[in-house]
Amino acid sequence: MEVWRINLHERSFSREATPAAWQRLGGRGLLARILLDEVPPTCDPLGSRNKLIFAPGLLVGHKLSSCDRISAGAKSPLTGGVKESNAGGSTGLQLTYLGIKALIIEGQPSGEDWLILRLDSQGVHFEPAGDVVGKGIYASAEELRRRYGTRAAIALIGPAGEMRLTAAGIVNLDKDGVPSRINARGGLGAVMGSKRIKAIVIDGLQGKAPPIQDEKAFRAAQREFTKALMAHPQTATYRDFSTAGIVHMCNLFGALPTRNFSQGQFELAEQISGENLRSILLERGGKADPSHACMVGCGIRCSNVYADQNGEVIVSPIEYETIGLMGSNLGIGSLDEIARLNYKVNDLGLDSIDTGAALGVAAEAGLMKFGDAQSAHRLLEEVEKATPLGRLLGCGAAVTGKVLGVRRVPAVKGQAISAYDPRAIKGTGVTYATSPQGADHTAGLTIRAKINHLDPQGQVEVSRTAQINMAGYDTLGACIFAGFGFAAAPHTIRDLLNARYGWNVDETILQQLGKETLQLEREFNRRAGFTSAHDRLPEWMCEEALPPNRCVFDVDEREMDGLFDG
Amino acid sequence: MEVWRINLHERSFSREATPAAWQRLGGRGLLARILLDEVPPTCDPLGSRNKLIFAPGLLVGHKLSSCDRISAGAKSPLTGGVKESNAGGSTGLQLTYLGIKALIIEGQPSGEDWLILRLDSQGVHFEPAGDVVGKGIYASAEELRRRYGTRAAIALIGPAGEMRLTAAGIVNLDKDGVPSRINARGGLGAVMGSKRIKAIVIDGLQGKAPPIQDEKAFRAAQREFTKALMAHPQTATYRDFSTAGIVHMCNLFGALPTRNFSQGQFELAEQISGENLRSILLERGGKADPSHACMVGCGIRCSNVYADQNGEVIVSPIEYETIGLMGSNLGIGSLDEIARLNYKVNDLGLDSIDTGAALGVAAEAGLMKFGDAQSAHRLLEEVEKATPLGRLLGCGAAVTGKVLGVRRVPAVKGQAISAYDPRAIKGTGVTYATSPQGADHTAGLTIRAKINHLDPQGQVEVSRTAQINMAGYDTLGACIFAGFGFAAAPHTIRDLLNARYGWNVDETILQQLGKETLQLEREFNRRAGFTSAHDRLPEWMCEEALPPNRCVFDVDEREMDGLFDG
Repeated sequence: MEVWRINLHERSFSREATPAAWQRLGGRGLLARILLDEVPPTCDPLGSRNKLIFAPGLLVGHKLSSCDRISAGAKSPLTGGVKESNAGGSTGLQLTYLGIKALIIEGQPSGEDWLILRLDSQGVHFEPAGDVVGKGIYASAEELRRRYGTRAAIALIGPAGEMRLTAAGIVNLDKDGVPSRINARGGLGAVMGSKRIKAIVIDGLQGKAPPIQDEKAFRAAQREFTKALMAHPQTATYRDFSTAGIVHMCNLFGALPTRNFSQGQFELAEQISGENLRSILLERGGKADPSHACMVGCGIRCSNVYADQNGEVIVSPIEYETIGLMGSNLGIGSLDEIARLNYKVNDLGLDSIDTGAALGVAAEAGLMKFGDAQSAHRLLEEVEKATPLGRLLGCGAAVTGKVLGVRRVPAVKGQAISAYDPRAIKGTGVTYATSPQGADHTAGLTIRAKINHLDPQGQVEVSRTAQINMAGYDTLGACIFAGFGFAAAPHTIRDLLNARYGWNVDETILQQLGKETLQLEREFNRRAGFTSAHDRLPEWMCEEALPPNRCVFDVDEREMDGLFDG
Repeated sequence: MEVWRINLHERSFSREATPAAWQRLGGRGLLARILLDEVPPTCDPLGSRNKLIFAPGLLVGHKLSSCDRISAGAKSPLTGGVKESNAGGSTGLQLTYLGIKALIIEGQPSGEDWLILRLDSQGVHFEPAGDVVGKGIYASAEELRRRYGTRAAIALIGPAGEMRLTAAGIVNLDKDGVPSRINARGGLGAVMGSKRIKAIVIDGLQGKAPPIQDEKAFRAAQREFTKALMAHPQTATYRDFSTAGIVHMCNLFGALPTRNFSQGQFELAEQISGENLRSILLERGGKADPSHACMVGCGIRCSNVYADQNGEVIVSPIEYETIGLMGSNLGIGSLDEIARLNYKVNDLGLDSIDTGAALGVAAEAGLMKFGDAQSAHRLLEEVEKATPLGRLLGCGAAVTGKVLGVRRVPAVKGQAISAYDPRAIKGTGVTYATSPQGADHTAGLTIRAKINHLDPQGQVEVSRTAQINMAGYDTLGACIFAGFGFAAAPHTIRDLLNARYGWNVDETILQQLGKETLQLEREFNRRAGFTSAHDRLPEWMCEEALPPNRCVFDVDEREMDGLFDG
């Protein structure tokens, strides 16, 4: 596996052997290592010294169920710190087929032209983006697939990324060619836009799957992992109800963000639940699909295709975080309306979490009406029109709150809190506060831990375990839900890695990778100017009690500061 | 001298003896001490845990020339760090007449009503602000003077402070009752607005000047200081040409911010120079006055009254920083136009530096035309109308640049750079980068140092000396220009303090006070999460050469990091 390095200023490209220090890492861990080695931590995230990096995880390339994710990273223009955001789809798989362990994109072009980077077995081709610039994600993807064929993997940005809005993501095609799998968080789309890259097209099918040192052992471990995964009860839940299956649980815990995080339960929760989602999709038929896989070989199929009453696609998929942030958080209780808003943010190429949170803040400032999807649409049209208000919203919740003078802003390190109110799920609050990534549930969700989520005691330890495991999974390229299988059969991680690479690692490898990754990320952030003062939830969450549990966030700060010790 | 403490949540008030550790400090140094002692450094600057503090400097209260300044401070909502901003006028003097060493305003009112705090020899009276809320600074001041008499000192906020815009200042009356002396920087007006205080009215003339331990020695030192001050050639320059006297020098050095800091010389510099200002004002007569004093007893009289062709006041004063940021920086070469813009920002209660810089950034983003004052006015009307764009601009240059996607943003620690381009006056660049206050020329201007301002060598030492001296002067309550006299007769500082307080300090007292102040401020910032990573100029200033000298900022970062050592 090689490192492919693209210099945009010189329009040059090189293939390099992977340095020894990078070989044992992949995905999120490798991104942190490269950022620390090559990107000045105090650089301007949208300037020429930042680098945009793609790295498939260590297990990517073999169609292992839920293990072909692509990590994208850079210094974040949203948080000012280290950033990794991973996604499913076909980008990771096809990069490994070209033998790419890391794709590093450096510098900025000297001209104003937008580029498409086309990668194939010959190398990198710099091509003019042409009239695809300025188009939404869906039209862009369609045009790119027309131009480059329907089998290539594509990572692209929408108007938000072109405008360098700091809530812009990078959108990848799923296994069926639908632009739907998003490196959503932290403004990586803005970094791609700052480098004037509209899309990266990866013709991986010219290449082949990466080598496996011990094919037999690998397949044995794969079978065992798959069996454990498919036997886990959650796998069926996610297949049936998608990620939306958690709406009820979150609502029950009083942690469902409602009307800009002013309430923890939503009176219309039933309507936006996974159960209702499933019954709607089964009833509507046509192109509707309650159990869709975003990656080849995924046995969980937590994705879905949301269709209207005629069975025509509105959006694919509709996920829990979007339901929470653009549904209950905006007082909107209709999945149809949420799906249409979801289509619109996707088309703009925006993170639905940060954008949903920004709309909630805007609603509190009187710019839209809670419960009124039309007014939310109008605000998204402001983004499309690139008005100052639209640009503001596209920069996410933290900046929106600052400018609009709203104090109830759900964000940590400049990044919006996801759809678990940290006052009611305190371990996840600890994750939001202390993760080097800024607020992010995928950095260490604790909602399934068997603890009292309202008790401030013990949450730091629960968050710590979750953060280490998640950093490990993100380094493997494993989906958060692959964890159901790996947790039941942890030795399969060891066996898969040893068989794939000829290593001799032991059962603690997941935690070793997780700890190393977090250490690297924290070191980057330390050099970028972060201290424990930044490892805090917003003050108002420590003061304002959340109904119905009347809870505030009250985990001891000194205990949080010790989370990463030892 | 006492500490007066107001709790807004309880609507209570107490007088306290000054704690021993606070007695030897005043002004900026005392603010830093109080913030460190009482305000949680990680608190929300616009939340209930921040405090708004007013502290006259150590020499305030005796009508010493240029030594009656008032320091206001809080944790800054603009920078997130320690903030002191000082101003002339009558606020400092009258606070000392009531025996107030520090006025500490805590908490937030539970209701929505706006307050006026009236201070007299009886204590503090909480009064409803009534219909003065929502009015501009000039109409508000007029109404307050009608209500409370024309002899009271008043510190008030305009619409920008009411809206909690982070470039909002606090405006004080000058000795003639004109609202014109502004604690402009760092968003202190927003902090006052977050506490729902429209104005503080100080009936100081009910009290008396603070006691002097050795009246005779004090008067002798005063005479010596005044003589040194009046003999200094710069005193005459500032009297004749106001602060605008420096336009030519700055332009000559190629350091005059022009068209959003893209150039260092302005082809219309002559028109906006102090020399032209003087000739215009002398020619127009009427209420025009080229040599106006903002404080009783000031021998310099660097202020002015700018009048139109009929001799009617447009604004008072027009100062160099506004000329630089709202004139050349916007490509505007007419003092009349600058004066009208100046009136408007004053009326809104905004910092003309951060607002001018924000307009420059907006011009670069295409929202106004360089050189077109009407389009600048239209943008200020957006602030008045409280539109999202207006709120954005009122939050200052850094946020404006972030949202509008402009990379050429002149700001450090979130605060706009003042009217000396740091690439051409590198010592001042070191001050901008390293001052705990964020970019601020008053924290240590180096333009008069006899060095090559383009040479990166030696600038750290020059900045260090300037920063220590300025922190000392700000602690005394002395105007930056009082330094002309004190520098020529440094022992008078010692003599004045010993005579005033019965102390026994030596000639190094200015530097002692300056060093202690900086140390306290840096400690507050450290706890608030600042590190050397924040002590940097924006990256583009290290990359983009400034015409005509083609200079970048290239002072060694490690040398800057050592500035405060020892």
